[in-house]
Amino acid sequence: MKTIYMDNNATTRVAPEVVEEMLPFFSDLYGNPSSMHAFGGNVGATLKTARERVATLLGALPEEILFTSCGTESDSTAIHAAIRANPDKRHIITTRVEHPAVKSLGEHLAQNGYRVTFVPVDRRGRLDLDFLYRNLSDDTAVVSVMWANNETGTIFPVEEIARKVKDRGIVFHSDAVQAVGKIPINMADSAIDMLSLSGHKLHAPKGIGVLYLRKGTRFAPFLVGGHQEAGRRAGTENTASIIGMGRAAQLAMAWLRDENTRVRALRDKLETELLKRVPNAMINGDPDNRLPNTTSIAFEFIEGEGILLLMDQYGICASSGSACTSGSLEPSHVLRAMGVPFTAAHGSIRYSLSIYNTEEEIDFVIDKMPSIIERLRRMSPFWQGNQSA
Amino acid sequence: MKTIYMDNNATTRVAPEVVEEMLPFFSDLYGNPSSMHAFGGNVGATLKTARERVATLLGALPEEILFTSCGTESDSTAIHAAIRANPDKRHIITTRVEHPAVKSLGEHLAQNGYRVTFVPVDRRGRLDLDFLYRNLSDDTAVVSVMWANNETGTIFPVEEIARKVKDRGIVFHSDAVQAVGKIPINMADSAIDMLSLSGHKLHAPKGIGVLYLRKGTRFAPFLVGGHQEAGRRAGTENTASIIGMGRAAQLAMAWLRDENTRVRALRDKLETELLKRVPNAMINGDPDNRLPNTTSIAFEFIEGEGILLLMDQYGICASSGSACTSGSLEPSHVLRAMGVPFTAAHGSIRYSLSIYNTEEEIDFVIDKMPSIIERLRRMSPFWQGNQSA
Repeated sequence: MKTIYMDNNATTRVAPEVVEEMLPFFSDLYGNPSSMHAFGGNVGATLKTARERVATLLGALPEEILFTSCGTESDSTAIHAAIRANPDKRHIITTRVEHPAVKSLGEHLAQNGYRVTFVPVDRRGRLDLDFLYRNLSDDTAVVSVMWANNETGTIFPVEEIARKVKDRGIVFHSDAVQAVGKIPINMADSAIDMLSLSGHKLHAPKGIGVLYLRKGTRFAPFLVGGHQEAGRRAGTENTASIIGMGRAAQLAMAWLRDENTRVRALRDKLETELLKRVPNAMINGDPDNRLPNTTSIAFEFIEGEGILLLMDQYGICASSGSACTSGSLEPSHVLRAMGVPFTAAHGSIRYSLSIYNTEEEIDFVIDKMPSIIERLRRMSPFWQGNQSA
Repeated sequence: MKTIYMDNNATTRVAPEVVEEMLPFFSDLYGNPSSMHAFGGNVGATLKTARERVATLLGALPEEILFTSCGTESDSTAIHAAIRANPDKRHIITTRVEHPAVKSLGEHLAQNGYRVTFVPVDRRGRLDLDFLYRNLSDDTAVVSVMWANNETGTIFPVEEIARKVKDRGIVFHSDAVQAVGKIPINMADSAIDMLSLSGHKLHAPKGIGVLYLRKGTRFAPFLVGGHQEAGRRAGTENTASIIGMGRAAQLAMAWLRDENTRVRALRDKLETELLKRVPNAMINGDPDNRLPNTTSIAFEFIEGEGILLLMDQYGICASSGSACTSGSLEPSHVLRAMGVPFTAAHGSIRYSLSIYNTEEEIDFVIDKMPSIIERLRRMSPFWQGNQSA
């Protein structure tokens, strides 16, 4: 059975171009870039190219690019650096809809002497900006707001927030893991101090992340030890993956137009047709400010897990809106923060496309979904209740 | 020109068997192991196998194995976990000859309210165990002692130390990055609580590490966020590299005998012949308790950097005893801690072999080294002074 992969906000296929460029660095050019000999030193030169490629994607300087092991490490590094640069400040602002990498860190810091403000969102997932600005204070060490939400695709006005936050002399960080490669990003014309990226969300391998660190930003390393990354991240460089990340950054630039035209059109077709063919279905999030590849659709009165299992029988891969992977039966914190009713949040499915998706795949999913939903609703006591009401 | 790679304590060739097993997980089986769909879930099953393979290598239980991004992260995770598990204790014991991953962390903690005791070593690099035991106190949160030194190969009696430390109810961690795969290790019959491994030191790729965490050890994650690694290390699993690490663990078990017979014999031949053919040369470290693959030889009155550059012209890769990579002109902290005279420490070269080295390579190096040393000494004012003295 063919796999129809529409779960690209969870992880992506490593582009064959990326794998090809990584391969020599495993068993042939395996030297340590810190070594004195040419065999290792030459690898260091290749890392320089990778760093430049990532910098180009972000409109940044090469020395503003730090390689980490994942988006989570980038987020932790950024927030810890801001805290350590401002040891007297004990307040942090973030949002109620962050990825667990930031949300859990916020909760962890709240248990360790910090006051943490979580900015609420409205029914469409839009941030309460007045609330955010009202809570800025001289005690605020850092404000961290994601660029785009992983579950709904909602894009936040991080550039505008960054300017306001910077006006107050406060450090601003953004988790841009879902945004990079999907919408244009240009750090040269931005007030953002730190930005987190994850390789495996843009067709590089898992296990490689990037932290953009604006020149002049006060910094303290999260991983201490060796001198790597100009003393900002210890640990032998993950050479093959860094090189893969560089190639993926190039591809992301080349694919950005396709992402915003063809992929967006596929997403729109999928969404429009599903809403047309399935009753009691609605979009989660802000349709006017969304990533081009993402749609989160609530199918009322059924369970997301059930939907995913039936989709899986057709080889269709997507995610539910609930935090199923942690074994919890609660709907996702994002949909709850938006005030999506339980009956809708539980039956929410996130379809996240990539440049590898085709029109045939979209048509296949459009064809199969109505019967999947209908089958589950026929078994659902909630749906029966709703129908008879 | 053929590369003769004798710098395996810096990093190793990724075994072709490892690359082969990793490859499908980039562009084909790229699902996220946390996903609900079979495409991702199947990857999770493969990770289970990798975890079991690493556990087997260490004589551990699969649930005692945590995958991290590198040895440095494993070290930081272990020491932070011990500190957080003992919030009232403000004392740490480690050694003067640790890898920067532990040494710099110790120095960092010493600047942040901790009292850190660095155990000295003697001229052969052996730890002053009485000093260590004398310094154990009710305030000691953790003792961290490396299993084998990366520069000299000296093996420390970590099992004995662990038992003494555990008798006092204190957590014991060992950085075993250089030991695993080179000497037998069995956690089933050990008092060690936590053990750090690095993939790229044993023919797995860079960017993957392991923390062995004994069942029942109090733990707090270093990277917080998602639920991965049973809530003990957040961040999407680095699937391809974890799978590579599993295969490398299998190979390490299969190769352990070769490492301790053939590789040891090659190292011994290299060392014996160089000491015979080059005047004013001596071994750094404890010849009676050493990794089978490592020899650190001090060539008096010349500079290690010069030696490496001339070796490089023959394609021979090794490391100097000095911390050249950090731009410092100081000899390595390890050789200084041992009291190696500056004139010897500066001219120290570490040869670290692997199962890929051949007798022909050893003969080539034995043939070339004497003239390299002689050439440099002819230019050295120190050597002239010594000769005329």
